[in-house]
Order: sequence, then structure tokens, then C-alpha cells
Amino acid sequence: MSVMTINIERNSGLFHLISRNGLGHEVVTDADPGIGGTNKGARPTELVIMGLGTCSAIDVVLILQKQRQSLNDIKIEIKAVKEKIETYSEFREIHMHFHLWGQIKANKAKQAIDLSIDKYCTVAQLLKKTASITTEFTIHDTSKNG
Amino acid sequence: MSVMTINIERNSGLFHLISRNGLGHEVVTDADPGIGGTNKGARPTELVIMGLGTCSAIDVVLILQKQRQSLNDIKIEIKAVKEKIETYSEFREIHMHFHLWGQIKANKAKQAIDLSIDKYCTVAQLLKKTASITTEFTIHDTSKNG
Repeated sequence: MSVMTINIERNSGLFHLISRNGLGHEVVTDADPGIGGTNKGARPTELVIMGLGTCSAIDVVLILQKQRQSLNDIKIEIKAVKEKIETYSEFREIHMHFHLWGQIKANKAKQAIDLSIDKYCTVAQLLKKTASITTEFTIHDTSKNG
Repeated sequence: MSVMTINIERNSGLFHLISRNGLGHEVVTDADPGIGGTNKGARPTELVIMGLGTCSAIDVVLILQKQRQSLNDIKIEIKAVKEKIETYSEFREIHMHFHLWGQIKANKAKQAIDLSIDKYCTVAQLLKKTASITTEFTIHDTSKNG
């Protein structure tokens, strides 16, 4: 068991909020101007998808490290589809495109990404309760530029 | 159906990442120094709890507005307990303490918070797949200072 503490304060307007973790790291959110927001930060549900991508990025970096693959850089593009269910929404389809720079074998990249989404990433296991998560990857072999 | 786009890039070190939504709003994350992180941002799973709190804050503000309650400020303190399940973790217990400033009737505050957690907040409905969410609230009546 581990305990997490989050404190949320209003910064301005109706919905411009600052969330802080126990170490004081800040995340800024706001609501859509359509409901009275001032568009000064990400939307709350976007934080969940950012949590998915960053959690999975950590897994992939760690697993490729253990597999002695030389990873120089990583980017992830995510598209997430939400469906309105009466009063709230559910994530339905999430697609993650991993871009990996370095000398990395394709089968090792696939294994690292699959392990993250199937077993290690806490946010992925949560989102899979309502959504299907699909992945693809592109290896940008930077050895050619060396 | 609505589509969300998130792009994640590495900023420094192994795990210091910047996530951007479609409008360019940035959220900074990093991993724990224990696994090689540099502690420059929130942890990925913390973003999910920040998503819960900020999503619920928006609901509560909107519902109190409809109920013609005068809300001057809002803060939320959240404690979330995660349990390790073999390779990943699941949220188990989440407690949210809402602080509301203004001239607000207690029954209206309770109703707004309950409606958010039971029906409106998308992130709450997701987290309830594995966690129980409990709430309490404190009304700080600022009319006395007027």
C-alpha cells in the first residue's frame, strides 16, 4: 500500500486550478470556454491520458535499458476516443504511437511496449477497464547520423 | 464520440517528460530518483488523481452555480491509496475533502459533491472500477467577514 496526497486550489476565474503533489510539483488545468473556463491549462480528462503515456514511457525506457538497447530519445503520440454515457464519458479506443531513436531491435521495441500495456503500466490497466489500447512504433535509427 | 490528442516528448534525463494537449498546454512529469528519475515533475499516476480532483471541482462549481449558491473559493485535498498487484498497482481507497468558501447550504454542498462522484465526473466513474471514493466537506462561511 502506498499513499498519495494531492492538493487542488483555484488560481483564477471559475475553473483555472493548480494541483500540487506532496513534493510541490504543479499541474495547471482549466475548463473549456464553452462552460465558463478560460483555457489556461489542460482539461482534467487529458491528465488521465498524459498519465497513461508518461507511465508507459517510463516502462519502455526501463525495459529497453534492461534489454541493453541503446535508446537516445522517445516521443509518444496518443489519440484517445471518449464516448458520452448519459451524464459522463468513457474512454473507448486509445491508440499510442511510440517513436524511438537509437539502435533498437524491432522485436525488443515491440516486447517493451507490449509488457508496459499488458502488465506494468498502472494507468493502462485502469483504462483497459473501458477502453481498448492499440500501439504502433517507429524506430528512427540514429546510428546512420553518427 | 470526441477525440483527444496528446503528444509526449522527453525534456531531459531518462524520464523528465513534457505532455502537450491539442492546444499546447503543457504538463511536466518525472520519475522517482529511486528508478533513475530526476524529480522535476509529478508522477504519472498522480496525474490521474489530479484529473479526478479537477474534474470534480468543475462539476461542483457548476452544480452550486445552478443551485444559486454563492461560492467564492474552492480547495480539494485528496488522499489516494494504491495497492501493488504483482506487476502494477490499483487505486483502492480515495478520500476527497472539499473546502468551500461562501454562503452555501450544507445540503446543497453535499448534493453537488454526490452528483459529481456518482454521476458526472468521468474520472471518478473510471477510478470507481477499482477504488472506493469517499468525500467530506467543510463550508467556510465568508459572509462573516463581509
